[in-house]
Amino acid sequence: MGTANTTRERILKTGLAMASQSGLEAVTLGVLASGVGMSKSGLFAHFHSKEAVQLGVLEHSERLAVSVVVEPAMKRPEGLPRLRAMVTKWFGWAPSAGLPGGCPVAAGLFEYDDVEGVVHDKIQEIAARWRQVLCTLTTEAIQRGHLRKGLDVDQFVWELFGIYLSHHVSSRFLKQKDSDKRALTAFAGLLGRARAKGSVAFSKK
Amino acid sequence: MGTANTTRERILKTGLAMASQSGLEAVTLGVLASGVGMSKSGLFAHFHSKEAVQLGVLEHSERLAVSVVVEPAMKRPEGLPRLRAMVTKWFGWAPSAGLPGGCPVAAGLFEYDDVEGVVHDKIQEIAARWRQVLCTLTTEAIQRGHLRKGLDVDQFVWELFGIYLSHHVSSRFLKQKDSDKRALTAFAGLLGRARAKGSVAFSKK
Repeated sequence: MGTANTTRERILKTGLAMASQSGLEAVTLGVLASGVGMSKSGLFAHFHSKEAVQLGVLEHSERLAVSVVVEPAMKRPEGLPRLRAMVTKWFGWAPSAGLPGGCPVAAGLFEYDDVEGVVHDKIQEIAARWRQVLCTLTTEAIQRGHLRKGLDVDQFVWELFGIYLSHHVSSRFLKQKDSDKRALTAFAGLLGRARAKGSVAFSKK
Repeated sequence: MGTANTTRERILKTGLAMASQSGLEAVTLGVLASGVGMSKSGLFAHFHSKEAVQLGVLEHSERLAVSVVVEPAMKRPEGLPRLRAMVTKWFGWAPSAGLPGGCPVAAGLFEYDDVEGVVHDKIQEIAARWRQVLCTLTTEAIQRGHLRKGLDVDQFVWELFGIYLSHHVSSRFLKQKDSDKRALTAFAGLLGRARAKGSVAFSKK
């Protein structure tokens, strides 16, 4: 990796940490430059606008989530084991990945709901891609006979998002110590309703 | 109501509309003064700081939610009917109350998770009060025999918050047309798991 790439990487890493703590709107060229320890014009050689930085930070965040959530989960057997791994790694993935705050996409879903533009669209795109991953894994779990036929996959994933968001608030804002346990209990309840009769996948971790 | 009170009310109403669309951080004295159509010094006669405005807006928001959610729901019979009315009026209460955006407390739970101070504390206080209302109603539904004994009330309400947050994202950011239906289906699923055997309250609207 050349110096330009390394510097770019360092900028995005710092930007992501900032976004994770203070939201994407707080990531401005000036604040970011001083966070990275470079001049604003030096930063400008890599990113020409605040929006370009914000898009870069969101893409960086998605790559990080893929490496700590998706890739390990995909190594698990297809069906319920893979879905379960994906969801449990998703809960609290940001601190697990070393971020000082929370998931910038989750926060962005509230921060940018009334703000049109490329940042809004990028958040929407990442959320849609993620929803698609969860829908695919849920469908595979149905096909493997782990979850019941006729399960409303979109509804199931819609409710999963709710558990994720409640976990985000519970662990981040409210600092509840039992937020992981609450989220896993909620997930188990949701799975229980989606369970196929007689599936043995449920007894496995 | 005197003129000072009327003006104060008008300021808070405008501030709440702004917070509902753009978040509490966007409600500054300057922007608010021009939104209300008065000078910044005129506004200053009512509120001496941005934080004072933000606290006022949050309190105004809570009063509004009490009038459109809590008061009508409290007229329903104690137990499941009252809980159900409270929860269904809660989903999407902000647009129902005429706000141009979403619930500022829900957004604040993401906007202020890493920001210490009086605004953070006020959001926490309102969220705790609201959680308490839901816990009380859930407990009453258990006492009336509508929900099962031994139900984990805190868990139940934790999951309700998830449904609310998913509904917020679904209706506000993603503009999904079926967000109300999704939220009600999720609520019915949660209630189904919490149901007391043989309760007749379930067949009632």
